[in-house]
Amino acid sequence: MALIVQKYGGTSVANPERIRNLARRVARYKAMGHQIVVVVSAMSGETNRLLNLAKEIMPEPDPRELDMMLSTGEQVTIGLTALALMELGLKAKSYTGSQVKILTDDAFTKARILSIDDHNIKQDLDDGYVVVVAGFQGVDANGNITTLGRGGSDTTGVALAAALKADECQIYTDVDGVYTTDPRLVPEARRLSKITFEEMLELASQGSKVLQIRSVEFAGKYKVKLRVLSSFEDEGDGTLITFEEENNMEQPVISGIAFNRDEAKITVLGVPDKPGIAYQILGPIAEANIDVDMIIQNTGADGTTDFTFTVHKNEMNKALSILRDKVQGHIGAREISGDDKIAKVSIVGVGMRSHVGIASKMFRILAEEGINIQMISTSEIKIAVVIDEKYLELAVRVLHKAFELEEA
Amino acid sequence: MALIVQKYGGTSVANPERIRNLARRVARYKAMGHQIVVVVSAMSGETNRLLNLAKEIMPEPDPRELDMMLSTGEQVTIGLTALALMELGLKAKSYTGSQVKILTDDAFTKARILSIDDHNIKQDLDDGYVVVVAGFQGVDANGNITTLGRGGSDTTGVALAAALKADECQIYTDVDGVYTTDPRLVPEARRLSKITFEEMLELASQGSKVLQIRSVEFAGKYKVKLRVLSSFEDEGDGTLITFEEENNMEQPVISGIAFNRDEAKITVLGVPDKPGIAYQILGPIAEANIDVDMIIQNTGADGTTDFTFTVHKNEMNKALSILRDKVQGHIGAREISGDDKIAKVSIVGVGMRSHVGIASKMFRILAEEGINIQMISTSEIKIAVVIDEKYLELAVRVLHKAFELEEA
Repeated sequence: MALIVQKYGGTSVANPERIRNLARRVARYKAMGHQIVVVVSAMSGETNRLLNLAKEIMPEPDPRELDMMLSTGEQVTIGLTALALMELGLKAKSYTGSQVKILTDDAFTKARILSIDDHNIKQDLDDGYVVVVAGFQGVDANGNITTLGRGGSDTTGVALAAALKADECQIYTDVDGVYTTDPRLVPEARRLSKITFEEMLELASQGSKVLQIRSVEFAGKYKVKLRVLSSFEDEGDGTLITFEEENNMEQPVISGIAFNRDEAKITVLGVPDKPGIAYQILGPIAEANIDVDMIIQNTGADGTTDFTFTVHKNEMNKALSILRDKVQGHIGAREISGDDKIAKVSIVGVGMRSHVGIASKMFRILAEEGINIQMISTSEIKIAVVIDEKYLELAVRVLHKAFELEEA
Repeated sequence: MALIVQKYGGTSVANPERIRNLARRVARYKAMGHQIVVVVSAMSGETNRLLNLAKEIMPEPDPRELDMMLSTGEQVTIGLTALALMELGLKAKSYTGSQVKILTDDAFTKARILSIDDHNIKQDLDDGYVVVVAGFQGVDANGNITTLGRGGSDTTGVALAAALKADECQIYTDVDGVYTTDPRLVPEARRLSKITFEEMLELASQGSKVLQIRSVEFAGKYKVKLRVLSSFEDEGDGTLITFEEENNMEQPVISGIAFNRDEAKITVLGVPDKPGIAYQILGPIAEANIDVDMIIQNTGADGTTDFTFTVHKNEMNKALSILRDKVQGHIGAREISGDDKIAKVSIVGVGMRSHVGIASKMFRILAEEGINIQMISTSEIKIAVVIDEKYLELAVRVLHKAFELEEA
């Protein structure tokens, strides 16, 4: 008998029929003798409906009152889910975040979980109930309702699993696991039965939008066994995300290929090479709340340096005008240019640590296809390159094949 | 400076524009220096939407889970209302029933209020906030969310006014007060500036659907000054419902005329006149959950008696078949008949107590118009008669005129 936390996102509870499906799955797990805690999101579309209603009244809604409203989305779903479980003859009981209670700080709309009281849930589980908990929400020390921000239901699931010392936290989503790369791009992409947390973090931050990064970090911190599964298929074991690098010997060298078409490259050419240049360039960008991803600085021979970084495509023009208006004259840069026809491709794998030559193999394979590399960035378990956008599909396909990631 | 509780029903918060109207009214009261607590219902239609969603999953939804869901309707409205008040520059803060806390028993879907903690609200009012409270809901001793049943928001308003010792509880609705009779029937009907609780109870139970009877009883018990006002008009003082019979000398003899077209009359003829007959007839009716309104028994000369009572029109046939199947043979009744072409007309007024001849005046006026009286029932402040349905409008009009209830 195991204690399992199952988290279902908005598309898995989008309508009564899907909620009934969810209940049938829970009933099967219950029949195997497991204790089940279900965490649900709001029905898909509901959070946006409520947000728009609030904005109609107040364009920038007060965050406390917004949380008061948004938290109702999950509250409706827990009631419906408990009813669906009862309709199948199970004992079920729903809890809001406040009722649990999931104590958070008072940073409305992006609160952090401080502690979880597991007393009621454990009692109910021992009494044979399936416990249904509202994701995405908590309560602060003064009894105000808070929400955890977008994707917060994943965090609720993982945090509950940690607090209850659950055997596994299952995240049900509309894909059936984590793949070596996007199957829409490479039909031979293979579902990974296992992946480490670090790899998952790299894959997630590189654009594999399966899980909220924050919940993965949380799972790593509290050593929660996390599994990604499809809520639309009854078969399959999904992908297990482990915090131990087991069987490192048998681990493939790289686990997956991530890519991202949403970045643009900005280059500051001919900057006098002296201390403080990076801050002078990126300071005004950060002040404008523009997120920067890759950063590269190369020293030239003539006492000047070239400085390149990437931002989201939507923010390239804003970043360019900040640099031209406030920075260029100030630092004496020769030229500032932007390019939004780029793509980033990353290979990820803990196996890299114990293998040399992975980077050179990657570069060779791209060179053989005539693909020029514009930027390179590496971490211990990841090598990312920026290339011309038009070569993205080709690059992912040849790398996938060269590193032997295909379906067995 | 007064402390005023204002309750707004579902039609008064049906959309953002109406919520903004509500906020503007509150702002005017605040500008006069008053402290304001606003109680709101769910946006009209929302409670039914949630109820239907629940029934789609479980035809007879578990009451605890249903309350979990239904309570979200008001929770959305309090957030929107607080936002609308802030948008006007006021300080505002919303509370769910649980947050207040409005402690109830655990009779889900029809809970009764046990106590109200006024601490947070008083603090906020003293700090200059408009406090917005979710109507219709509370929390039981175990932290479960409860609802008070249909019309429960009126009860929340009155209970809060009692707990806070408010100077007045204002109920905003889609009519601008209580009238001498239905203005759609008698254009000369006059809005009453004042009415006693007892009269209000009689008028409400007779079909003037302005206020929930339960909230009126509650107001009477705790001596809360209640005022009915229109949320669609900015002028007018509505109708004040008082618990003291002030200025009894100047009080008109009758205050209003209520009527009801929804009842049907059932007659049991030729019943042997012996003890226990009333129970033998009405017992099976009550067991079938059929509500009975008027009851009359007349003893005849031949040792038999005629027994007549009224039920809702929709239940006449059910009541008739119960009587014919289970009762008639058993008690030896000669005949059982039903008539759904009837109407009930009542005159109501505390002034009746100190005036004789009101009943005879009523009967004379009806007789002068050739209207036959089929049943009569009286209380200390009410005389109700059952007449042929087709004479209803005529009866109300001539009584309204004879008792001088017209617009001054």
